Amino acid sequence: MNTTTRETTIAADPNAPTITITREFDAPRERVFRAHVEPDLVRRWLGPRGLEMDIDRFDCETGGAYRYTHRDENGEYRFYGSFHEVRPNERIVQTFTFEGFPDGVSLETVTFTDLGDGRTRIEGLSFYDSVETRDLVLSSGMDHGVREGYERLDELLAG
Amino acid sequence: MNTTTRETTIAADPNAPTITITREFDAPRERVFRAHVEPDLVRRWLGPRGLEMDIDRFDCETGGAYRYTHRDENGEYRFYGSFHEVRPNERIVQTFTFEGFPDGVSLETVTFTDLGDGRTRIEGLSFYDSVETRDLVLSSGMDHGVREGYERLDELLAG
Repeated sequence: MNTTTRETTIAADPNAPTITITREFDAPRERVFRAHVEPDLVRRWLGPRGLEMDIDRFDCETGGAYRYTHRDENGEYRFYGSFHEVRPNERIVQTFTFEGFPDGVSLETVTFTDLGDGRTRIEGLSFYDSVETRDLVLSSGMDHGVREGYERLDELLAG
Repeated sequence: MNTTTRETTIAADPNAPTITITREFDAPRERVFRAHVEPDLVRRWLGPRGLEMDIDRFDCETGGAYRYTHRDENGEYRFYGSFHEVRPNERIVQTFTFEGFPDGVSLETVTFTDLGDGRTRIEGLSFYDSVETRDLVLSSGMDHGVREGYERLDELLAG
């Protein structure tokens, strides 16, 4: 297994309030996309290890919406948003709010690229209302959750 | 009538890819909010004069979505998006795409402030993935549509 190809890159743009996340997976694009869309798959990988995920709603289609709770021994963390656009196997555009910071909202675009040989790259772009909000998100430890979530997705895709 | 209080301010942030729009109305907050939420009212003021607006969907509630067509003698312009959050009489957060530029998407927050004496201020913040996209929107003539739309809203609220 060539783990270097599975490195998660998380970059903050110095000139705009954005975060860019890039990750490759050893699985075909259709499977990686489906793992983002079907709630029974999403709950098995989204977020760091040791959390349980309760999904109230997850209609991953253009004009749909979602709401879920992550739960660990320290407490509950609720998130919600809407799906602005879902292009099968290509692109998901969604909003995102952590209820602990209810006035904060970001817009996230994820694109799925077929690399051939049954491999897939996903590129996420999140943007925020200000650099301050973006930096608050970066300092929250989100990078740990993203990296560990994608390791769990590796395991799900290998299963 | 004191028209100076009805000036529409449209400002581009020099340090972030955002547009801020501020406007006051001689009507109570509940009425101004309702004119943003009920499709039969929205179609009477949104956009510049001389357009017809056909609404396919307009579920202005948290987790809802919208899709509509503006039509004039030159053609049709289709728009769609989702409602991330709707707090009655306070705040609407929604996404926005013009189908002529399908990969472009913005996030818009509108807040409604009761000024007393039956007057209301709305403040809109739109943000984009880059300054380039923001400047493209600004150069599209959107300011004309926004100003004329709010004049039509004045007339609707006075009716």
